[in-house]
Amino acid sequence: MPAITGKQYIDRIDQMQTNIWIDGSPVTGKISEHPSFKGVMKSQAALYDLQHDVAFKEAVTYPSPSTSEPVGLSFLQPKTKEDLTKKRNMVQQWAKSNNGLMGRSPDYMNTTLMAFASSASFLNEKKNCFPENLLSFYEYAREHDLSMTHTFIDPQVNRSPFYLEYSEEPIAARVIDKNEEGIIVKGARLLATQGGITDEILVISSGGVVEEEKGFSFSIPSNTKGLKFICRESFVGGDSTFNYPLSSRYEEMDTIVVFDNVVVPWDRVFYYNNIVVSNNFMNESSFQAFALHQVVSRQIVKTEFVLGVVQSIIETINIEEYQHVQEKVSEIIIALETMKALVIKSEVEAELDKWGLMQPDCTTLKVAINIFPRVYPRFTEIIQLLGASGLMSIPTEDAFQSSIRNDLDQYLQSKADNAENRVKLFRLAWDLTMSSFGTRQTLYERFFFGDPIRLSSELYHSYNKASYVQRVKSILE
Amino acid sequence: MPAITGKQYIDRIDQMQTNIWIDGSPVTGKISEHPSFKGVMKSQAALYDLQHDVAFKEAVTYPSPSTSEPVGLSFLQPKTKEDLTKKRNMVQQWAKSNNGLMGRSPDYMNTTLMAFASSASFLNEKKNCFPENLLSFYEYAREHDLSMTHTFIDPQVNRSPFYLEYSEEPIAARVIDKNEEGIIVKGARLLATQGGITDEILVISSGGVVEEEKGFSFSIPSNTKGLKFICRESFVGGDSTFNYPLSSRYEEMDTIVVFDNVVVPWDRVFYYNNIVVSNNFMNESSFQAFALHQVVSRQIVKTEFVLGVVQSIIETINIEEYQHVQEKVSEIIIALETMKALVIKSEVEAELDKWGLMQPDCTTLKVAINIFPRVYPRFTEIIQLLGASGLMSIPTEDAFQSSIRNDLDQYLQSKADNAENRVKLFRLAWDLTMSSFGTRQTLYERFFFGDPIRLSSELYHSYNKASYVQRVKSILE
Amino acid sequence: MPAITGKQYIDRIDQMQTNIWIDGSPVTGKISEHPSFKGVMKSQAALYDLQHDVAFKEAVTYPSPSTSEPVGLSFLQPKTKEDLTKKRNMVQQWAKSNNGLMGRSPDYMNTTLMAFASSASFLNEKKNCFPENLLSFYEYAREHDLSMTHTFIDPQVNRSPFYLEYSEEPIAARVIDKNEEGIIVKGARLLATQGGITDEILVISSGGVVEEEKGFSFSIPSNTKGLKFICRESFVGGDSTFNYPLSSRYEEMDTIVVFDNVVVPWDRVFYYNNIVVSNNFMNESSFQAFALHQVVSRQIVKTEFVLGVVQSIIETINIEEYQHVQEKVSEIIIALETMKALVIKSEVEAELDKWGLMQPDCTTLKVAINIFPRVYPRFTEIIQLLGASGLMSIPTEDAFQSSIRNDLDQYLQSKADNAENRVKLFRLAWDLTMSSFGTRQTLYERFFFGDPIRLSSELYHSYNKASYVQRVKSILE
Amino acid sequence: MPAITGKQYIDRIDQMQTNIWIDGSPVTGKISEHPSFKGVMKSQAALYDLQHDVAFKEAVTYPSPSTSEPVGLSFLQPKTKEDLTKKRNMVQQWAKSNNGLMGRSPDYMNTTLMAFASSASFLNEKKNCFPENLLSFYEYAREHDLSMTHTFIDPQVNRSPFYLEYSEEPIAARVIDKNEEGIIVKGARLLATQGGITDEILVISSGGVVEEEKGFSFSIPSNTKGLKFICRESFVGGDSTFNYPLSSRYEEMDTIVVFDNVVVPWDRVFYYNNIVVSNNFMNESSFQAFALHQVVSRQIVKTEFVLGVVQSIIETINIEEYQHVQEKVSEIIIALETMKALVIKSEVEAELDKWGLMQPDCTTLKVAINIFPRVYPRFTEIIQLLGASGLMSIPTEDAFQSSIRNDLDQYLQSKADNAENRVKLFRLAWDLTMSSFGTRQTLYERFFFGDPIRLSSELYHSYNKASYVQRVKSILE
Repeated sequence: MPAITGKQYIDRIDQMQTNIWIDGSPVTGKISEHPSFKGVMKSQAALYDLQHDVAFKEAVTYPSPSTSEPVGLSFLQPKTKEDLTKKRNMVQQWAKSNNGLMGRSPDYMNTTLMAFASSASFLNEKKNCFPENLLSFYEYAREHDLSMTHTFIDPQVNRSPFYLEYSEEPIAARVIDKNEEGIIVKGARLLATQGGITDEILVISSGGVVEEEKGFSFSIPSNTKGLKFICRESFVGGDSTFNYPLSSRYEEMDTIVVFDNVVVPWDRVFYYNNIVVSNNFMNESSFQAFALHQVVSRQIVKTEFVLGVVQSIIETINIEEYQHVQEKVSEIIIALETMKALVIKSEVEAELDKWGLMQPDCTTLKVAINIFPRVYPRFTEIIQLLGASGLMSIPTEDAFQSSIRNDLDQYLQSKADNAENRVKLFRLAWDLTMSSFGTRQTLYERFFFGDPIRLSSELYHSYNKASYVQRVKSILE
Repeated sequence: MPAITGKQYIDRIDQMQTNIWIDGSPVTGKISEHPSFKGVMKSQAALYDLQHDVAFKEAVTYPSPSTSEPVGLSFLQPKTKEDLTKKRNMVQQWAKSNNGLMGRSPDYMNTTLMAFASSASFLNEKKNCFPENLLSFYEYAREHDLSMTHTFIDPQVNRSPFYLEYSEEPIAARVIDKNEEGIIVKGARLLATQGGITDEILVISSGGVVEEEKGFSFSIPSNTKGLKFICRESFVGGDSTFNYPLSSRYEEMDTIVVFDNVVVPWDRVFYYNNIVVSNNFMNESSFQAFALHQVVSRQIVKTEFVLGVVQSIIETINIEEYQHVQEKVSEIIIALETMKALVIKSEVEAELDKWGLMQPDCTTLKVAINIFPRVYPRFTEIIQLLGASGLMSIPTEDAFQSSIRNDLDQYLQSKADNAENRVKLFRLAWDLTMSSFGTRQTLYERFFFGDPIRLSSELYHSYNKASYVQRVKSILE
Repeated sequence: MPAITGKQYIDRIDQMQTNIWIDGSPVTGKISEHPSFKGVMKSQAALYDLQHDVAFKEAVTYPSPSTSEPVGLSFLQPKTKEDLTKKRNMVQQWAKSNNGLMGRSPDYMNTTLMAFASSASFLNEKKNCFPENLLSFYEYAREHDLSMTHTFIDPQVNRSPFYLEYSEEPIAARVIDKNEEGIIVKGARLLATQGGITDEILVISSGGVVEEEKGFSFSIPSNTKGLKFICRESFVGGDSTFNYPLSSRYEEMDTIVVFDNVVVPWDRVFYYNNIVVSNNFMNESSFQAFALHQVVSRQIVKTEFVLGVVQSIIETINIEEYQHVQEKVSEIIIALETMKALVIKSEVEAELDKWGLMQPDCTTLKVAINIFPRVYPRFTEIIQLLGASGLMSIPTEDAFQSSIRNDLDQYLQSKADNAENRVKLFRLAWDLTMSSFGTRQTLYERFFFGDPIRLSSELYHSYNKASYVQRVKSILE
Repeated sequence: MPAITGKQYIDRIDQMQTNIWIDGSPVTGKISEHPSFKGVMKSQAALYDLQHDVAFKEAVTYPSPSTSEPVGLSFLQPKTKEDLTKKRNMVQQWAKSNNGLMGRSPDYMNTTLMAFASSASFLNEKKNCFPENLLSFYEYAREHDLSMTHTFIDPQVNRSPFYLEYSEEPIAARVIDKNEEGIIVKGARLLATQGGITDEILVISSGGVVEEEKGFSFSIPSNTKGLKFICRESFVGGDSTFNYPLSSRYEEMDTIVVFDNVVVPWDRVFYYNNIVVSNNFMNESSFQAFALHQVVSRQIVKTEFVLGVVQSIIETINIEEYQHVQEKVSEIIIALETMKALVIKSEVEAELDKWGLMQPDCTTLKVAINIFPRVYPRFTEIIQLLGASGLMSIPTEDAFQSSIRNDLDQYLQSKADNAENRVKLFRLAWDLTMSSFGTRQTLYERFFFGDPIRLSSELYHSYNKASYVQRVKSILE
């Protein structure tokens, strides 16, 4: 079963009967029919279907190295700069289908797993490490087109820099025991996006681990015994794509993952109880470069969408001639072209890494993810500043199908379009920036790679400044 | 019937059976029991009740000049600086009851009507003007403690500076005829906040009128024949104050007001078809100074609330020691103290105006409303930057009452508080900044006095710069 | 000799023959005739002369409490709110004479000394403390109208937070010995503005002292044996007020102060070798509130001057109709009115402090000095953005007196003025923002009260947030 | 005489005896020995010398198409993407020799002339146009390695958008007559940087011409009869490279160019009195793309220099561990990598244009020049914020050679370096950002391609937004 269809994805998830709680109740029945999940699962299914669409198949799959059957291109281990460009195109092809609003479309985790697996030899000969498990899981996932979620961080009990957990019962998940079957994990981790609607959950420690028992990596099926996904409130506004053009389709859900004495079978353990490996694997692997390449490629498509929305508003209410309007749009154009340029630079300057992969220039991509969390919120601000009262004149689909339709038609018409189209556009702009779905998108982009301040410090530390200091020295001599 | 109680307010509105449409259906039955309105009406009623609470009565009422019965202090015509301070205290007393989140609590419109009425003599002897109607309506409103909404602007068909409406049927409301009973108005106006839950709607043209028929001012009961309020989607998240601590209480609703051949009785017409008056009354009257004084006083209370929320988050997750956190809070403190200082300055520099009122310094208040639309959105950004993933770990009240409560208690506890309190706090922060209620608050503050760019140009033009230019001249000579 | 004249000031300084080094040479002869000092000394003298000008005398002096002779009003110990307003008027009167460009006009140090002396009882009964010396020096300074400079900080060897000096020879000044005459001080301190052109130098430790020997306070005449002032390069552009309208008049000079085994006589020692006092006197005293009140009052006058310059440029080249120009000026207006409002609030909320002085509200003033270092550099940016190429079309006075004058008259004329006036205006704008004098002004305002980031943290810590946190608690309950 | 040496350059300019006025006096004698010009001419000569340095020759020259002799690479007409990369390397090679501080090193004008000449056929068959003159001048300039300045704009009499010059005598230069020899030009133009120290001056109208007589293009020798260069004040601080490491070397001077009935010989006229051509040639030609490519390449080197200076300060005073310091440096890194990425993108996306040249993508480069005028001033702000009081503790070279050297050595030492090196570094930072040379650099970068607001509007208008609008349409359908 290589590259799957949307139906295969949905059937597989429906059958898992994963333990998911939302608003105080467990999800029962087919999750693909649950109001909080059906939209996003359909959108996800559409991505898989592109793998079987003749117009896209070539762009989004490649022949499996083991079977030559088509498998998802996001699993590809790039060996050339052309491979990188191919990957970018694949990511953007999928992203266009949801305008970049699905931050966790499967290509993200596929890329992540590929990168970790390609760096598996880092684990060789190290205590409590099982590189072979990682490699075989990668192959298994690729050949079965598994969807995955992940959790990288501990609960936010205390964000002081000097915090050490002191609770008797684990809060952050930890290895509390092991037996013949595997390691036993208890505690929680945050925040699995798409938690419960993927085949697997990949867990990996992300640095800063101070207790051995909190450092581990493994992947298990979402329906593993003892595993529980606790959802936040759903941000699906409703079924109507008129009213909620985005949340009805792309609300991915975030979940707290509870491990209640979960047994992780040995063949799915990649490493555990090795603090040095825990703290270094993520950075030493090629994860960052490839994950960032996927992310930035998607963010570009999202920025294009924002630009489209802004320009549509401008044309609809005819405000193009204001210089401050032009300036605001230019800000978006500048951000868009900058992101595009940075991806291109990362590919132009790609080099073969120690694992034999063609790795895009990571520093360049780090610059991109220092920029996006700052500009994306500004985009939403621009939409609000230009949309103005139009963002509050948003009657619903039912209103347009009622006896007051004539009033709406007359009083909500715009210079360039009729009332219905205009309201649809403004509802879209609202759903992108002002609905609880939209604001969660903003929060998501603010923190995609963690605290913006930490990202900025990391860039400072990792950047090679010595040659420029030297140039100053030479003018002073 | 001077200063009313909350119950009187609710009964009066319930009895009106105003023609309100929401989501394609008319509101039927008691509006105070309708899910989209009951919360805000209860909060509004609580304001009226303060007028009869011994602890507050003195602060929020004054003896009617006609009957000596207590009437709402926001109707007071201030004659001294002490009166201004009293008014500020009254406004802030009411605002504290909703933390400044009700932008259209009745004191706003009471102040507005007071200011217009005090300037009624501007209309004396002018064509199609009826100052006596304005004066008697003010007195009537004060003595009956009428609640009011208003509309100041035309539909946003085309925001080009050179736009002239060309539709055959009126879009923007206009006087299409007159008869013995009154003037006849057809068309729509935007955006009546609290439309439908007030006794009256006050209409006034706000400058920039180019066709005589679009310039008028009057007030009519909300249930006048032909008058229709079309609501946007409601942003009440639900009844639970745990889940939706703000939208369940303070969602004021915005409405499009449709005039379907509405007859405005002559005794309620303040002026009509007089383009010079239309374009100047608002600016010539003392409206701006008094309205701004009310608004800024309320915004101060709201800023205090934001500061409280931010500091609560900081203490809960223990991030006080980060210097960038301190800097972000300082931004809020600076804004808060600046707003307070500007109100004080406006009172210290108040002067008797040509209508005999003690008018707070308007320029100073204009500075305040140039500042607030810029800082308030930044406040919401700060909350998101500090709240981070905590703003997405927000299970609902039902979750806490279900069998997973133990998980929540364990995994969502924080350094300083238990899980339930922590989630309540973060849900509050979310409702303030990320729910559709919260983002509407942000939009509201962005545009309270109109386009920020226009406000800035107006400040430039109205500010007296000549003496400073002179000082430069003298150093150059 | 109470309130002195300008001539008395100049004569006194000339006679001191203070040890001042500039550009590798000692200053010899009359310092008031030295090209680097004559301009600023003349401007300073003009301030003193106002004390004898009938038009200003009353505004800038008051009757000495000891002799009833007129003494400088900046020495006044305010006991009422009216006193505060008087002080503000005095400061602004002097500031207008130099448009706020003399950051260290004598009223600053007079105010400082007054505040310290008023708090002298803090030193009572403490080890190595001599409050009586401080009191008598204050009286002496007031009665003789002494001019003063001061140094508050150590050399910038290493700004790491964990730095401890390790040099064998003192770098930062310290008490190395004492004898019958007094304490003996060796080392350097930064950055005495006006160093060498004042009667006295006041030294005081400013907190953060970790070695007893670095904590002391005293005042000594500038020509004390062993005392040396090392100047930076002078930023006087030249004598021509056409070419250098500001630096020719107001360049105050900054100096490194070297103590080469300086003996500070016992009757001038206020305290020494008492680390607790060293670290607390400045904050415990009323210094901050009064110093900030003086500073902010001056900064207001400076902002008015900036506004005058900007508006003059706008009128000269006729750019008033651009909306972005209006917006930029509005930024300045907003800052100006905000600063004014904060001073007024600090006076309205003034309270008698524990030393019996009417102290302006310090928190309010701290807000002001958090704002100014951020807005002042923006003012200079605005001047550059509006002045544009005009700031580079600046021929000198000599050019206007040469045979190419006709060319200049023709080609540099502006819409509103002739070429000479236009060039004078643009040279003024250049001297304010782009000459080395102007950029030093900017740096000075950036750091007047220290590192902006530290100021912001201090504001956070000192601000009372508890009541707002409580308000949030009450809505959550 | 193909690619010249520095000496050839200097000799040629010295012999011209161009009519230059500075500070009211004409320059007489060898200009290369004049204090205001000798530094920059020496720096310029060093660039030419690189053409004969075996280590650089290949990188900075290419074989002349007419003679196969080596000529300056900046004259190259690029036909391939490799040519573009070569050009970038050449520009950056030269820029490194002055750290990007010479905004008008000859490669800028060489590139400009090359671009205009390559587009000469635009002038074919048009009234008053002489494409053959342009072509032969390009060849002549290339083969003689002529240095050039240019003027693109009119005097800043009145910047109102509706201004029409009304003076009787020309202010802006215009064609007042023609005769057998050529056209006769009278009036002035702004602001020729390096005016007077180049062989030629190229004049070209830049759009917005409303009177035929103001639209023309030609090139004439700097010493043409009737041509006069009027300098602003020189910003050379002095000869000492210790004191003025930058202004002593790179001060390029800006001049007003006066045409006093200058006869432009017919063979040097490219076009005149053709308003359509005047308004379109600059935009229609490949000028913008190539000029921007040169400019951005240079700005990258300048940004590298700023980064070097900032990091040197950080290491010298040991402030690396502050998170806000890291954040500020990251801002610079982000800008640097963004500029680099945009140049790379412009080359990757280069296409053959209608003139047969490989043209870098102009939109991408327009983004870069929208960014740089905003970030460069921020760089100077960062230097001031980090340098702090160190930027005012800057004694001169003479001070270090005087008897107070011991004091300086002791009290100005820093954690990482001795006093002399530390002062040299801080003087460099000061000369870059706070001397009148440094602030002129800032102004120059702010306005290199004109008013930042206009640049932003142009970007908006030229950017292709239609496909993104279409994408929005498709989601709404």
